[in-house]
Amino acid sequence: MKDLTIGIDIGGTNTKYGIVDREGNVLHQGNIPTTDHEEFQSYFNAMAEALQAGINELPDDTRIMGIGVGAANGNYYTGNIERATNLKWKGVLPLARMFKDQFHVPCILTNDANAAAVGEMIYGNAKNMKDFVVITLGTGLGSGFVCNGFLLNGHHGIAGEVGHTSVNPNGRYCNCGKRGCLETYVSATGVKRTVYKLLADHLEPSELRGISFEDLNTKMISEAAHRGDVVANEAFEYTGRILGMKLAETVVHTDPEAIFLFGGLAMAGDLIFRPTIKHMEANLMPLFRGKIKVLPSAMQNQAAPILGASSLVWDYPDKLQLKLNWLNEF
Amino acid sequence: MKDLTIGIDIGGTNTKYGIVDREGNVLHQGNIPTTDHEEFQSYFNAMAEALQAGINELPDDTRIMGIGVGAANGNYYTGNIERATNLKWKGVLPLARMFKDQFHVPCILTNDANAAAVGEMIYGNAKNMKDFVVITLGTGLGSGFVCNGFLLNGHHGIAGEVGHTSVNPNGRYCNCGKRGCLETYVSATGVKRTVYKLLADHLEPSELRGISFEDLNTKMISEAAHRGDVVANEAFEYTGRILGMKLAETVVHTDPEAIFLFGGLAMAGDLIFRPTIKHMEANLMPLFRGKIKVLPSAMQNQAAPILGASSLVWDYPDKLQLKLNWLNEF
Repeated sequence: MKDLTIGIDIGGTNTKYGIVDREGNVLHQGNIPTTDHEEFQSYFNAMAEALQAGINELPDDTRIMGIGVGAANGNYYTGNIERATNLKWKGVLPLARMFKDQFHVPCILTNDANAAAVGEMIYGNAKNMKDFVVITLGTGLGSGFVCNGFLLNGHHGIAGEVGHTSVNPNGRYCNCGKRGCLETYVSATGVKRTVYKLLADHLEPSELRGISFEDLNTKMISEAAHRGDVVANEAFEYTGRILGMKLAETVVHTDPEAIFLFGGLAMAGDLIFRPTIKHMEANLMPLFRGKIKVLPSAMQNQAAPILGASSLVWDYPDKLQLKLNWLNEF
Repeated sequence: MKDLTIGIDIGGTNTKYGIVDREGNVLHQGNIPTTDHEEFQSYFNAMAEALQAGINELPDDTRIMGIGVGAANGNYYTGNIERATNLKWKGVLPLARMFKDQFHVPCILTNDANAAAVGEMIYGNAKNMKDFVVITLGTGLGSGFVCNGFLLNGHHGIAGEVGHTSVNPNGRYCNCGKRGCLETYVSATGVKRTVYKLLADHLEPSELRGISFEDLNTKMISEAAHRGDVVANEAFEYTGRILGMKLAETVVHTDPEAIFLFGGLAMAGDLIFRPTIKHMEANLMPLFRGKIKVLPSAMQNQAAPILGASSLVWDYPDKLQLKLNWLNEF
């Protein structure tokens, strides 16, 4: 009998799902629009139907061990999506209970950055690590912490909001209502804002002067930097400097073995890693210098959100073994 | 048979020790000078002798379950004190192994702020809490994190150095070698530095103008503030503003139920709690506002360092039960 899990990533526009084995092979996948349903129950029914169709196609010698879901504002403790700003359904959505009732398997829900952290531990570059951080660089900056081998959820289930630490209390406006949050500088959107700031401040010619804010993306900035564009290169330097400074603060909180960078901005490679590592080291308390790895995530592919979500189920039975190993260390 | 533990707090000048029961009653206590011995082995022998004399006086129906030690640069994983700057013995001191060999019971070593956090959980105001932070405000600013019910040690055993997050990269010189670290503003020393800065900047009369930096202490500043001294009041406001701003960053990392303030500065009460809470709330990501308690430590007495250290032993067998409770929540 082969054990499988279902991973579901609920985004504001699309919901991706897949059926995954322990090695991270995706046996079946698909997606449904998140926005097509006025009622949450109707959206849930469409998703359940699509999943059941996928399950029906599986070979006989397989079984579904559970369902993992990554969603903004997903609460690990309650299994509810709570007041998500990226979804049209208001209030508290008891998703984990609904899946459990429908499919009679455990359902584990958390936010997308936490799912990415567990995904890195189960399938990625954090295998065998017990203390690490995953930073997801997308529209915003998400973070997931694993401490002592366990996902850090915090008391209210909302730990890991490093994107909302402060760079400058009078800085850029943030969606959260504050100003100067880290994610307004360090994210796909943040680096675009930095390019526009640099174009405003400086006189240098730049190929980016011909591109509107809406059209601009990280890949364009990265390609321009590789062609020697001064503004594009300065934008990465500026972004890495701020990320490095703030990672130095994160490090002294939880003392991780490694920090993984995930997402489009991380795929700019040396352009972002070099200034990030340099400024993290320069700003670290000396006791920590040279000890903390900053590494690319191994989950840089289309299926990453599905894998991250599905990993929550593998992490669930594994917890017992982890806890016992940890105890045996004494 | 009554179970007891030994708690030892190794400071730069004095080593305090005590024999403690599960309720936090200190049955026997004493102290030996830390500085009297050129050789570490000779210091250890003196301490072992003093402890044995204490053990010999215990009633027959008691037994020692283990030894807990709090010491700057104490590493929980290795049981070594590693390159402590406040001790005269250089290099790596294998203290936990030496105690284990001498007394044939487990010995658990960690730094003093971590010991304070476990002490708060075992004897103090954090009973039944699984996610909280203790901030110790002494000569410096120490911090201990409990996450998911476990002390957070981090990968290298040095987690919780919140005192060395940055307030201002060009700010006050710090013992760690950096500038502008939180503890240069928020600690017994930090508030003295702030008083001196305010006396330099302003013209207001202040009773603190007649006191040298060496003679000045938190209690004097607190008493002056209660008598309406403008500079003393402003010093607490300034200190609380910086602490509140930085606690807002700590909160979004680990999402604690509560933050406990411990030490002389915390005993200034409202003078420090009011501005700290006000500025923490103002700087918090809105999702967290109104959710995080900032509370005084219950461990504000002479025996606190001994109790904190002794609590490490009670926490050790309790871990299994905690882990099982935690698993049963699913």
